[in-house]
Amino acid sequence: MNDNPPACAAKTIQFWFDFGSNYSYLSAMRIEEAAARHGVRVVWKPFLLGPIFRSFGWEASPFVLQKEKGEYVWQDMVRLCRKYGLPWKKPGTFPRNAMLAHRVALLASDKPWIGEFCQQIMRLNFAFDQDIGSEAVVREVLRQLGQPADEVVAAAQSDANKLRLREQTEAAKAKGIFGAPTFFVGDEMYWGNDRLDDALEDAAAGSA
Amino acid sequence: MNDNPPACAAKTIQFWFDFGSNYSYLSAMRIEEAAARHGVRVVWKPFLLGPIFRSFGWEASPFVLQKEKGEYVWQDMVRLCRKYGLPWKKPGTFPRNAMLAHRVALLASDKPWIGEFCQQIMRLNFAFDQDIGSEAVVREVLRQLGQPADEVVAAAQSDANKLRLREQTEAAKAKGIFGAPTFFVGDEMYWGNDRLDDALEDAAAGSA
Repeated sequence: MNDNPPACAAKTIQFWFDFGSNYSYLSAMRIEEAAARHGVRVVWKPFLLGPIFRSFGWEASPFVLQKEKGEYVWQDMVRLCRKYGLPWKKPGTFPRNAMLAHRVALLASDKPWIGEFCQQIMRLNFAFDQDIGSEAVVREVLRQLGQPADEVVAAAQSDANKLRLREQTEAAKAKGIFGAPTFFVGDEMYWGNDRLDDALEDAAAGSA
Repeated sequence: MNDNPPACAAKTIQFWFDFGSNYSYLSAMRIEEAAARHGVRVVWKPFLLGPIFRSFGWEASPFVLQKEKGEYVWQDMVRLCRKYGLPWKKPGTFPRNAMLAHRVALLASDKPWIGEFCQQIMRLNFAFDQDIGSEAVVREVLRQLGQPADEVVAAAQSDANKLRLREQTEAAKAKGIFGAPTFFVGDEMYWGNDRLDDALEDAAAGSA
């Protein structure tokens, strides 16, 4: 991954997400197709939102801590999934921890199957209410994608890769990320699924 | 104002806003034209965001309390104002109290000049960095609109109208409003300037 590609590089958008984030789900399911339409390449940037929230002194998601906002969010998701034509089932556990899935996504960030992997994990969480924190679920997704699950999981759980995920989360914090999804086009930050289209237009216009 | 119009009434959208809220500015400047395009009538619903935030234990706007989000919001406003073709100047005081302006807006909710009054107050705050909390500023706006400033201000400052604004803020809280702008189409709540278009489409479709 190269945050500062040379001038000749394809136009890119960084997509910073957490598998437990419902608004990240909306973006994960749409971004590859939308970016392709704009001639923009997606750089998948998994990170952990939990440590970011804890750095603000929050012990949970604001959707859990703030009752009114929390109730609203689930209505909003129903409407937005209808609008985007996406399946939706409110997860029985929210937000779901998905440490292994994050580690695999980080490891596979520049693999051709990264998009499909992330979309399938998101789908299992937000359309099928499956426990994406379980190793069995992650292994099954890898198998469906034709990947060697033993090998990938071992590499994902290596100390070096665990450290990389902590570093990626620190990098998110250092970039001023305070929620997910967050997009970057060059140094320009866009927060929230609602900004995906604006971010892609700016990326396509080459303003970054 | 009638929250439950009979079936024969025109389609309506309720626009709950606070003059100090920057995202309310974006909606206030767009809503009348956008609603007209959809054949929808706007019901202006001024309320005070401060008591709502204090009810969550917050002593200020989250854009003030959360450094990262606060910094982001001002970038976001620059981009959104460019997108909508709206003037923008970051207010020197944020959020600005505008008690009298809220009281006048409540008093004038069903007057034909309500939209222009609110837009002019918003413009003074977010495009000209004027102190919309000052009585002189509110009087000048009323004069520009050809309204009898003495009479309107006296009625706005009456005990009955002060009480009405407190009740309207209580009503916002009771409806589950946790930020501004918030739109209602029937019982359906939409939070944020980003949902204005969806709310208007639903209002026009008559789902409310």
